[in-house]
Amino acid sequence: MAAIPSFSDRERYVRELGEFLRIPSVSREPEHRHDLDAAAAWVAGQLTFAGGRVVETAGHPIVLGEWLGAPGAPTILVYGHYDVQPAGDETGWESPPFEPAVRGGRVYARGATDDKGPVLVALKVAQAFAEQDGGLPLNVRFLVEGEEEIGSPSLPAFLEQHRDELAADLVVSADGAMWRPTEPSIAISAKGLVGLDIVVSGPRIDLHSGRHGGAVQNPNHALARILASLHTPEGAVAVPGFYDGVAPLGEADRAALARVPFDDEAYRRDVAAVPALHGEPGFTTLERLWIRPTLEVNGIAGGGPFTVIPGRATAHVTCRLVPDQRPDAILGAIAAHVGAHRPPGVEVEIVPQPGAVPAYSIPADHPAIAEAEAALRAVYPDREPLLVRMGGTLPAAVLFERILGLKTLLFSFSTGDEQLHAPNEFFRLSRLEEGMRAWAELWLRLAAERVLRGASRI
Amino acid sequence: MAAIPSFSDRERYVRELGEFLRIPSVSREPEHRHDLDAAAAWVAGQLTFAGGRVVETAGHPIVLGEWLGAPGAPTILVYGHYDVQPAGDETGWESPPFEPAVRGGRVYARGATDDKGPVLVALKVAQAFAEQDGGLPLNVRFLVEGEEEIGSPSLPAFLEQHRDELAADLVVSADGAMWRPTEPSIAISAKGLVGLDIVVSGPRIDLHSGRHGGAVQNPNHALARILASLHTPEGAVAVPGFYDGVAPLGEADRAALARVPFDDEAYRRDVAAVPALHGEPGFTTLERLWIRPTLEVNGIAGGGPFTVIPGRATAHVTCRLVPDQRPDAILGAIAAHVGAHRPPGVEVEIVPQPGAVPAYSIPADHPAIAEAEAALRAVYPDREPLLVRMGGTLPAAVLFERILGLKTLLFSFSTGDEQLHAPNEFFRLSRLEEGMRAWAELWLRLAAERVLRGASRI
Repeated sequence: MAAIPSFSDRERYVRELGEFLRIPSVSREPEHRHDLDAAAAWVAGQLTFAGGRVVETAGHPIVLGEWLGAPGAPTILVYGHYDVQPAGDETGWESPPFEPAVRGGRVYARGATDDKGPVLVALKVAQAFAEQDGGLPLNVRFLVEGEEEIGSPSLPAFLEQHRDELAADLVVSADGAMWRPTEPSIAISAKGLVGLDIVVSGPRIDLHSGRHGGAVQNPNHALARILASLHTPEGAVAVPGFYDGVAPLGEADRAALARVPFDDEAYRRDVAAVPALHGEPGFTTLERLWIRPTLEVNGIAGGGPFTVIPGRATAHVTCRLVPDQRPDAILGAIAAHVGAHRPPGVEVEIVPQPGAVPAYSIPADHPAIAEAEAALRAVYPDREPLLVRMGGTLPAAVLFERILGLKTLLFSFSTGDEQLHAPNEFFRLSRLEEGMRAWAELWLRLAAERVLRGASRI
Repeated sequence: MAAIPSFSDRERYVRELGEFLRIPSVSREPEHRHDLDAAAAWVAGQLTFAGGRVVETAGHPIVLGEWLGAPGAPTILVYGHYDVQPAGDETGWESPPFEPAVRGGRVYARGATDDKGPVLVALKVAQAFAEQDGGLPLNVRFLVEGEEEIGSPSLPAFLEQHRDELAADLVVSADGAMWRPTEPSIAISAKGLVGLDIVVSGPRIDLHSGRHGGAVQNPNHALARILASLHTPEGAVAVPGFYDGVAPLGEADRAALARVPFDDEAYRRDVAAVPALHGEPGFTTLERLWIRPTLEVNGIAGGGPFTVIPGRATAHVTCRLVPDQRPDAILGAIAAHVGAHRPPGVEVEIVPQPGAVPAYSIPADHPAIAEAEAALRAVYPDREPLLVRMGGTLPAAVLFERILGLKTLLFSFSTGDEQLHAPNEFFRLSRLEEGMRAWAELWLRLAAERVLRGASRI
């Protein structure tokens, strides 16, 4: 096995991360298009040894590159994204979002942890191997996109069109996040997502509630009745068919989850900050978060603080799905349930939202998981890595599986508490070196992993 | 009995109404304070024969005046208001809201029907008697306020402080509205109003619905469950005690209401514009609108169209009350009901809103009602006047009763369809002359009405 590079030049890593973070590559705001181009060019510039290039799409460009000089070794596809969320309310930031500031061993900036810091880790590992050994320990393709924060709309067609160019044995993703700062972890599943609006229409215009109150169905009342029917009072989803096909939790799964350190009271007090936890009966909090599908009413709106019977009332609903739940079947089940519970005197419409994503998972016994665990053990010898689950979605991983037939190993050195999508986003600088060492370990191990060498071997 | 003046100078009435309407006396907008002063001065100028004067209050001024030269005759207190609603969205107006425009026998302007047209009617009747006879047929005091559209906050203290100056036998209000343009009507009751917010608090901040969904009670779910509990599916209010003390509807009441022409299908289609009417079982639509108390959720808000579990969800609720329902008792009943239905895992707070008003009513056999009916018959000989009820509130009438011990006769020549509080508010010019003739008839009749002459006779 080749040697791990030293990764001793922290000053340079921080300086270059600063350059990357100073580019406000906000994918949701059209006026930043030139910043997206600049960020893509910056990434391509880091990949000159691998033929790094910017490829146009229907949306923001995708950066590709490849180093394929390890015949007989597996090929991995490294995934990340150079786009960032909008800064949001800038008054909430202690330092400006696009002027990276180092405080207390952390770099604060929009995109620091999602996903520019973790992308830098992957780029620097490749560069370090190339400098040290004149090549990489295995074949590596790079795909760094610029639309992750807006749902990767151009990625499906791009993957279809570049299927051959992207042939590999495994995707290794620099996106994702470790569960907690104190416990090294690998996420082995992510929930799916399906969203819909429920629109209740009553009078054509808002009516005066004094002149007309009592004679017509109030859309707010009708919506409340529909929404109240979606769950049992105890907290289970009451939509018939919602749990169809959901695998029951076996004793082995339960035992595995029970071994994950999780303190309900600390979670209640510090994370959720609620008077009491509440959820589907018969499951622990961790089971509810990781294994069970959910239905949440994210938004309700109708009328206002004045004396009207509003013309309409709406709810935005999203479900988090687990494997074997099909988004379209869930949508159908909810539509049927709402239809069966439609109160009199109003019209009720179900408006499916775009961007439904099924759940993603990689088997806990996939060979890449064992190598990833070993790589984490090498960097964090005192802490046994945890296999965790995500409540969020991984649209890109679902696309890689569907279009390229590849499983994705999530190997990000972002941490879930680093203010993703919020003001004062940060990235722990210690994760830079830890991440590089772990990625280097992983690559060396995957290079020797015979099981991975599949049909795509070059 | 003295003669009715001729009221033939329509050109002058329209010109003077135009002057009044051109003053943008919007009580809700502080920048219009000088316009409120100007409108008050304009009204006082119309009352020079009655010592018209502008009296300051803690808020906008009140115009007072009195002509007390009819010893032995009753004294009436004429009520109206010179303030108007904001114009709202000016793009919705066909002509500018403060540039009165006559089209098709109507004058269009903010305040035309609420309440400047009807106030002009009362002022011109007094002037016409004074010019014709050198005095009025009965003793008349005037009180024209400038805060009706903001809930008359200065009126209670003003009535307390000027109790002696305002002694009378009856209030005759130029505010209020006839039910429909085709049927002369007198409103004999108005519902009361009590409002409250229901605030459901869960997590201290909005939580990501992927990371935390399923583990905490969602305030939107909890609020929906509470709101759904407030009514039966059939449409009755389900709050224990809500109907306590509400007089059952006797056969005579039912028969009287059944005689009021009311077409459910036309109301459903043209006024409410809903797929089907809906309301408390066992009552007709008119009974629901006029006689039965209601509880309406006017507004709901929580989260939005993004993947959160919101930190809080709120509802704005108002109840329309009938006689013998006490606002504070209703508030207590709702608070107790919500407390009994509080879902687990959230805090629920009831926040009473200011401005609770009990119901107002004047007995159908009050002598002023018979005189008002006779006055309407004199002007509209072909149409028998209807006694109607209002779903809206009459805070001023409640105050006159509570503080001055006076019943209020609503004798407005505004009509309910004249776009009150909406763009393109208008007043039918035909109502000017009809109103003047009816008010003159009424004054002559009240002058001869012995029953009215009570303790306040001068």
